[in-house]
Parts: sequence; C-alpha cells; structure tokens
Amino acid sequence: MAGMTEDGDVPEYESLAQSVRRLIDATIRTEAGAGTVAAAKAHIDCAVEQLSERLMPGSFAVRRPVDGQPVASGNVMIGVRNPVAPPLVIHRDAGGAVWTEVTLGAAYEGPPGHVHGGVCAMVLDHVLGATAHEPNRPAYTGTLTLRYVRGTPLGPVRAEAWVDRVEGVKTFAKGQITDGQGITVAAEGVFIKPRDARD
Amino acid sequence: MAGMTEDGDVPEYESLAQSVRRLIDATIRTEAGAGTVAAAKAHIDCAVEQLSERLMPGSFAVRRPVDGQPVASGNVMIGVRNPVAPPLVIHRDAGGAVWTEVTLGAAYEGPPGHVHGGVCAMVLDHVLGATAHEPNRPAYTGTLTLRYVRGTPLGPVRAEAWVDRVEGVKTFAKGQITDGQGITVAAEGVFIKPRDARD
Repeated sequence: MAGMTEDGDVPEYESLAQSVRRLIDATIRTEAGAGTVAAAKAHIDCAVEQLSERLMPGSFAVRRPVDGQPVASGNVMIGVRNPVAPPLVIHRDAGGAVWTEVTLGAAYEGPPGHVHGGVCAMVLDHVLGATAHEPNRPAYTGTLTLRYVRGTPLGPVRAEAWVDRVEGVKTFAKGQITDGQGITVAAEGVFIKPRDARD
Repeated sequence: MAGMTEDGDVPEYESLAQSVRRLIDATIRTEAGAGTVAAAKAHIDCAVEQLSERLMPGSFAVRRPVDGQPVASGNVMIGVRNPVAPPLVIHRDAGGAVWTEVTLGAAYEGPPGHVHGGVCAMVLDHVLGATAHEPNRPAYTGTLTLRYVRGTPLGPVRAEAWVDRVEGVKTFAKGQITDGQGITVAAEGVFIKPRDARD
C-alpha cells in the first residue's frame, strides 16, 4: 500500500476504524425496519469479506516501525485501528502526571444512561498504568483498587493519574475519573516493570 | 418491524451486531491494500447511513418488554445488540455462584497476545456484580479490587464469582478469571443495592 510503514499503520486504516466506531453506535441505536437492517448487514458482510482478503494471523500485538517506537494500534484502549477503543489519547504533564479527556457514548453503557463500572475500571487501569510506562518499557498491573463514588453519566469525562511513590520495580499510582460535577471513580494501583526491562 | 417486541430486541438486530463483531476483528487485522480498504469503508459508511434512518435518542438504556424482565441489549458486556460486548452469557448455579465462558480475541488486546488488564477488570466487575443482582434489582459497584496473578492470553477464558457474605445492602463478592493453566486475575468487590430496591 502506498505510504505504508512497517507497523502497517496507515491513515486509511485509522479512517476505516473511525467509520466502524460510527457503525457500532448506529447498530446499538437503530430503530430501522427489518428490510433496512438486512440491507445494512449485507454491506457489512461485504466489507468483512474484502478486508479478510489479507489478514495478519492472531492479534495486532505491537509492531515496531522504522523509528523504533512501538505502536499499539490494536490496543483496546488506545489503538487507532481498534474500533472498540474510544481511542484514548494519553497526555503527560511535566511532573509525570497523565491525563486524557474522552467522550464515552452508547457503546460503553452499563446502568441506563451511565458508563459501565467495568469501562471506568478499564480506563483507569490504562491511565494509572501509563504513569509507570516508559518508551519500550511497558509496566504490568499488579493490583488495582477502584472506589465508585457515584455513577458516571455517559458523555465527556476526564481521567487522570499520578505516581504516589516508587519502590524498586513497583510504581504506586493514584487516579480518578471526573465529570463536570467532580469525582465519580477513584483508583489506586501497583504497576510492575517486567524483569527484562529493569535498570 | 415484523416480530418486533417492545424492547426493540429482534433477531435481525442481534444478527447485525454479530456481523459488526466480525468487522471489528477484520478492521484490526486486515493487511489489505488502500483500494480495498477504501471500498470496504464505502460499504460501512453506507450501512451507517441506512441504520441512522431512525435512531433512538441517547443510549439504549434498559427497555422493559411485555414480560416485565428488563433487557439490557445495549450493555457493553452482555448486550446482544452491542458489538463491543463479546457478549457475555451469564450462568447461575443452584448455590448462587455465577460463571461465564468467553473467547476474547484481538479486539480486547493490551500487552501483545494478551487480554488488556482493564478488560479483565471489566469482565470481573460484571460477573461479581451479577452475584448481587436480582430481577429488576440491579446492584451497583461500591469497590472492586483486582489482583493480577499473570497475563491472560487472548483466547478462551472462564470468569466466575460467588457471594462471600451479605451485610445489609452490601454484597461482598469474590471471583476470578482462569484459563487452561489456572487463575490469571483474582477479584473482590462490594456491591450495593440502591435505596429504591431495598427490602
């Protein structure tokens, strides 16, 4: 493919995933009749067949393009090629704190009109873990504790996390999800750098 | 729509969601060239337009069909209409324990070849919470603590949970995810029945 990099992460794939995100939302919320649904399904099945013309075996994993930075384009939280991912865009401030702002819609629903508690857990796991990540040195979750203060309404939320302290290979992180009215979920976690990535 | 029930949960919608799940996997794993990707995207955009002909406002929420059992077809974990949901099928044994068996593929990836720790958290939140649910009386997560024993490889897993004890409105649940080699993640949680659903 023209412009294709070694990680297989081209703009066309990102744009495709964006279309599939819109499709997920419409699939949940459609009230169209049986004939229209059947016609839409035929288009989708056709797209699946086209894309399956060449599939990588297994999962996306992490691909290492020419500049050496690993790319997790298939990741369920940050992967630009994964339609399940919002995707989160992770920001870091000078002090090492991490934050992201994201709008969670119908696809992430648990209690009516609210984000599933498990989705909040997933976002916090990722954001807290990101405080311990370094380039080429991902950290793995040891423990994660979530305290649900109140329901998180579907819509825009902010998730943020910071390092509380570091002890050897363990990073103790804290974080929270907030909406316009304040904290909805608070979290604490211990993240561990794998043996082969220790200093 | 013919056969449509009050909850809007017809077989056509479920079959549509299944097609979109296959599309999500193909979108992540395709290595097709730019022309093929553009053709597939055109089909998807067409399906979005068709399904958007009539959309419910907001999110799916919980619809109450004629038999009175609420249906959470849009739920991110169990919703048959939500392509993000595997969907989990929750089983209960006579003693009140809850279990589900599910295959988690490329769409749920975190570390290469492994389920994202946050997805494990999401599955466990749902399964532990289900121990405290009663028909028409959903319970909400108070706290959830996850201990990651080792990485969970992508593929078939079993998640199970049971009630440890009940204190007033609080249900203390425990649970775990296992693969063929044993426990990968252990969890404890406190689930709370909302005021309007207390005895």
